[in-house]
Amino acid sequence: MTSGPAKRGRRPGAPDTRAAILDAARSLFATQGYSGTTIRAVAAAAGVDGALVHHYFGTKDDLFVAALDIPVDPRQILAPVVAGGADGAAERFLLAFLSVWDDPDVRPALLTVARTMMEPATQRVFADGFLPVVIGPLGVALDLDRPELRMPLVASQVVGLILLRYVLLVEPLASMPTEQVVATYAPTLQRYLTGPLP
Amino acid sequence: MTSGPAKRGRRPGAPDTRAAILDAARSLFATQGYSGTTIRAVAAAAGVDGALVHHYFGTKDDLFVAALDIPVDPRQILAPVVAGGADGAAERFLLAFLSVWDDPDVRPALLTVARTMMEPATQRVFADGFLPVVIGPLGVALDLDRPELRMPLVASQVVGLILLRYVLLVEPLASMPTEQVVATYAPTLQRYLTGPLP
Repeated sequence: MTSGPAKRGRRPGAPDTRAAILDAARSLFATQGYSGTTIRAVAAAAGVDGALVHHYFGTKDDLFVAALDIPVDPRQILAPVVAGGADGAAERFLLAFLSVWDDPDVRPALLTVARTMMEPATQRVFADGFLPVVIGPLGVALDLDRPELRMPLVASQVVGLILLRYVLLVEPLASMPTEQVVATYAPTLQRYLTGPLP
Repeated sequence: MTSGPAKRGRRPGAPDTRAAILDAARSLFATQGYSGTTIRAVAAAAGVDGALVHHYFGTKDDLFVAALDIPVDPRQILAPVVAGGADGAAERFLLAFLSVWDDPDVRPALLTVARTMMEPATQRVFADGFLPVVIGPLGVALDLDRPELRMPLVASQVVGLILLRYVLLVEPLASMPTEQVVATYAPTLQRYLTGPLP
């Protein structure tokens, strides 16, 4: 068999196959949530075999991060935060996080993801996806006590900071130098990570 | 002249005149922002005299709060926070704030406002409206130093808390008892209100 236009849509490595898988994954994660989405369902929706989804995208976590369609893998950004341990993790987290958001090449894509996570139709992507796949494991890797409480507290401050600084462009936050943002928010986040909590 | 169906739309006290003013105000605040909206422009858009707008709604601040269409005036809710002074203001603020958001009769309207403030087309309502009309004056009334810095910090945590607890329903925040939320977030907000800041 030779390749040709008629077969293009079914060729495993073809860009449109990858795109079809990503489209199906985005749609299912948004409507069914992370836990309600299976690789099998994504494969069926994309009209391919489940093994092909694993072959191109790895685990379900990897597929979820790929479906976010941001030019960075947040788990890689967070690796140095984890490597340093819980002590001082808030400051390292803020530095890593701001270096990505303050990059003008990356910010537009992040803004799209942030808006998606707040729209009623797709907001499950955050609570039932981004939180367990990206933020939750950070708390476990840092070996925190009560990570299931602490990481949502961290998220509640970081999400508000993103909204005011990057989405709503509220001053003086929107123009505040990185070092000042880090120094302002690090005590809050460090208390949420390792401080005494009720 | 006698009243009749043909005159109903122009009668000053008629419900549809009030509604027309509120519609015009909502549309203008959303698209022009608070500072870009004048009583004169609202009156013109509603087809009434400016004096009538003042007569029914008071000041521009009052009109803005009325246009939010929530069953409480946030400025009244915040009055006891101000009355107690800056010491302990974070705890009083959280108690006042949660009493409103945790009221099932009020929450749906607040959710609508919160969503409006995050939509791209209407997000100026927050940065150029809610913040200067409702949140900013709180910092001035509490006689804080640098209120123009401190109140956006407070807002950045409160907005994130609203999002995770009430909009995205992230656990354990969504089910957390009021007292625990207050005890968890009061130290953060009190530092933003009165603590040392970089």
